[in-house]
Amino acid sequence: MSNATQTKLHRLTDELNRLIGKENVLYSLEERICYAYDGSKQKCIPDVVLRPQDTQQVSGILCLANEYKIPVYPRGAGSGLTGGSVPIQSGMVLDFSRMNQILEIIPENLTATVEPGVVTHTLQSEVAKHKLFYPPDPASAAFSTLGGNVAECSGGITGLKYGVTRDYILSLEVVLADGSIIHTGRKTLKSVTGYDLTRLFVGSEGTLGVFTQITVKLLPLPEKIETLLAFFTTPEQAVRTANQIILNNLLPRALEFIDKSSIDCIQGYKQEFQIPKDVHAILLIDIDGKETSVNIETSLIERIITENQALKVVSAKNAKERDILWEVRRAISPALYTIAAFKINEDICVPRSQILEILQRIDEIHKRYPSLKVANFGHIGDGNIHVNVLYKEKDQQVTAKRMIEEILLNTIELGGTISGEHGIGNVKSDFMPLEIPPHELRIMKDIKQLLDPNGILNPGKMFPL
Amino acid sequence: MSNATQTKLHRLTDELNRLIGKENVLYSLEERICYAYDGSKQKCIPDVVLRPQDTQQVSGILCLANEYKIPVYPRGAGSGLTGGSVPIQSGMVLDFSRMNQILEIIPENLTATVEPGVVTHTLQSEVAKHKLFYPPDPASAAFSTLGGNVAECSGGITGLKYGVTRDYILSLEVVLADGSIIHTGRKTLKSVTGYDLTRLFVGSEGTLGVFTQITVKLLPLPEKIETLLAFFTTPEQAVRTANQIILNNLLPRALEFIDKSSIDCIQGYKQEFQIPKDVHAILLIDIDGKETSVNIETSLIERIITENQALKVVSAKNAKERDILWEVRRAISPALYTIAAFKINEDICVPRSQILEILQRIDEIHKRYPSLKVANFGHIGDGNIHVNVLYKEKDQQVTAKRMIEEILLNTIELGGTISGEHGIGNVKSDFMPLEIPPHELRIMKDIKQLLDPNGILNPGKMFPL
Repeated sequence: MSNATQTKLHRLTDELNRLIGKENVLYSLEERICYAYDGSKQKCIPDVVLRPQDTQQVSGILCLANEYKIPVYPRGAGSGLTGGSVPIQSGMVLDFSRMNQILEIIPENLTATVEPGVVTHTLQSEVAKHKLFYPPDPASAAFSTLGGNVAECSGGITGLKYGVTRDYILSLEVVLADGSIIHTGRKTLKSVTGYDLTRLFVGSEGTLGVFTQITVKLLPLPEKIETLLAFFTTPEQAVRTANQIILNNLLPRALEFIDKSSIDCIQGYKQEFQIPKDVHAILLIDIDGKETSVNIETSLIERIITENQALKVVSAKNAKERDILWEVRRAISPALYTIAAFKINEDICVPRSQILEILQRIDEIHKRYPSLKVANFGHIGDGNIHVNVLYKEKDQQVTAKRMIEEILLNTIELGGTISGEHGIGNVKSDFMPLEIPPHELRIMKDIKQLLDPNGILNPGKMFPL
Repeated sequence: MSNATQTKLHRLTDELNRLIGKENVLYSLEERICYAYDGSKQKCIPDVVLRPQDTQQVSGILCLANEYKIPVYPRGAGSGLTGGSVPIQSGMVLDFSRMNQILEIIPENLTATVEPGVVTHTLQSEVAKHKLFYPPDPASAAFSTLGGNVAECSGGITGLKYGVTRDYILSLEVVLADGSIIHTGRKTLKSVTGYDLTRLFVGSEGTLGVFTQITVKLLPLPEKIETLLAFFTTPEQAVRTANQIILNNLLPRALEFIDKSSIDCIQGYKQEFQIPKDVHAILLIDIDGKETSVNIETSLIERIITENQALKVVSAKNAKERDILWEVRRAISPALYTIAAFKINEDICVPRSQILEILQRIDEIHKRYPSLKVANFGHIGDGNIHVNVLYKEKDQQVTAKRMIEEILLNTIELGGTISGEHGIGNVKSDFMPLEIPPHELRIMKDIKQLLDPNGILNPGKMFPL
């Protein structure tokens, strides 16, 4: 615990206890240590963990934090991959697990309003009972929360056809750094009254304000989903197939790419899922919509796959088989640890026409880093590839980062971005200047300064120190 | 011409001539008067009209304007309905008609990049040649420009299924008030690097920066569009039908409502289009997608229409008939002038479940203003109704505005917004505080101050004076 913050918090204990109840103010090391991590595997123990239950409590906490200049880290499930919720400068973690209610689902309006602690999959399932669909579907949906998704502007496997979290947020209740409460946007499908503060907060990684209510737009639930798995002997065939699907006027729900290294990791993960040895690339494709169009589109896509010399194409025969295929896809990221103990999971996105080029450049760069391993997979449909750099010993981290930097520079050269959907956090903040020139970074910092003059909200994230 | 600005401009003439060519610096009254209007029918003659040809010229102009504190009004086609491009404090109009090139269409990436002066319909037609689709479709698409659409975050008839302009803008080149050039977002389908400046500029009505390049996201062109026209004896039947379409898991491309007063205006507009006398409400519906699903969805919608006691439902037999139906719909707004010489065209949006309630409240309010006429039509699918208040004598304007204010207050009470898609401009800026409380308005003004400290960009718009 940092001494300065400790002294401040000591003075605040009574007030915090009164504000949110003693049982929701966690000081013990055993409890705090649970909030020290996220998916980036950093470890920074907060000074205190607070579990607010409503907007007024969040407001009260931020008033105090702002007055005493104590860092505040909003936290959903802590599953982010760039350190978004890690309390790197100590201070208060705001745990939203007690604000996890779905407040309303209104089918007639195609909207739902939730508290930030609602797990994404829970919302997806609940709206499905009304034959409705919340499309953003990050691989973490089973445990990540709406609050975290909004903070990071999560993407996921449905991005090509359905867009990302940003495209589904209509309105936010936000507590600002000074404890004041604002409501951005409206619970209407259209609104252009004033500047678009809603999207300014979406993807702001907890650095501009803390969300306490989120209203999302819903769509009708697609009638049918068909899943295809195509095996190729070369990555070129897979990339060409993906491009031809798009150029043939087809927009699958998901269009995922898996390279040889990733295949090696998931080989044997499920007994039901065996991959022939000469397979060097896989496409995993979901087609959704009305049953009749799904059938037609599936046939067209199968033809394109065959024309591109796929070794084999299989379709999931039922929901169970489909679940297995996607379970294997979702297992790639954690399974990569079987190759090496350490991993940097990058998240580049390029215009789709540049995918083959960036994959070839990554291969070239890799030749100069023979001690490292590389595995690529991800959302080829929207040009978003998760480049994983793997290494066995901790002291290889510097080398791995040098390789990552080369990849990022090449990504930017090809018109791409250093983060498609994982955010910047503190893990990538040093790389921000590669993409964002100083005068544009200045504008972002000025907006941060405007909304959080004392810099208490998630300090050390997004911007290079 | 204002004296102070005149003196400044006199000093700048040589520099402006050198910067963009004398033929693009328009000083004559005959020329300037053409730039005094927009769709809101205000008249404010600018001091000078400048026709830049590239980003550097725009940057040079803004440098000078900022140094000499001269107001700048970016202008596309001048078809906005809230005064967005009207030079209300004199100064420079920036006419983008010479920056009207489609710079690239890349089918593989599903993107296009355009200059701001490109007419929306031109882009729609050009991308259609590649079987691609730019969905935002304001009623003004035949003449309004992409620059104007982005500035206002235009909606249109496809909003329910496809969203609005905001949802299709990937990246912007923006010249800031001080002449500096920034590039927001990336030409990729996903990007979360830094704050979302792109959407901060979309809908900012020319008050934060001037767009010089716009990259949009495209979709595959739908294979087929079917158009249905349903006649009802009561507005309640029409609203109920619209709601049941949504509740039956159907998302039409367009779902438009036309009330009795609007029907009276368009009756006889086209010989081919005759409306039975006892019709008091019309729904105009487009269904698009793959041919097979369009056929299925059309049958389902026809059944819902019939079950709701429609007098009649007709479908367009071919593209020509479809064009006639939509031409009639697009003619409503101008045709309303046949009822009365003056009109205020409102643009409220409510959650769809509140449409009947707001229509009934408008009826009630109207009873207290018997000297005014009211016509309602618009995008019932997304809750966005154009409430038109019509009056015969100019001095009834105060009364009309009082009625409008009552309607807006009721809209907000029902969870709605005062502007769904037309923007605020100076026409509605006095009403902003009805919806946006002072501390939220303060944030917007602070952002404006940050990006345009001298207040030269479209002064007098968006915020109440």
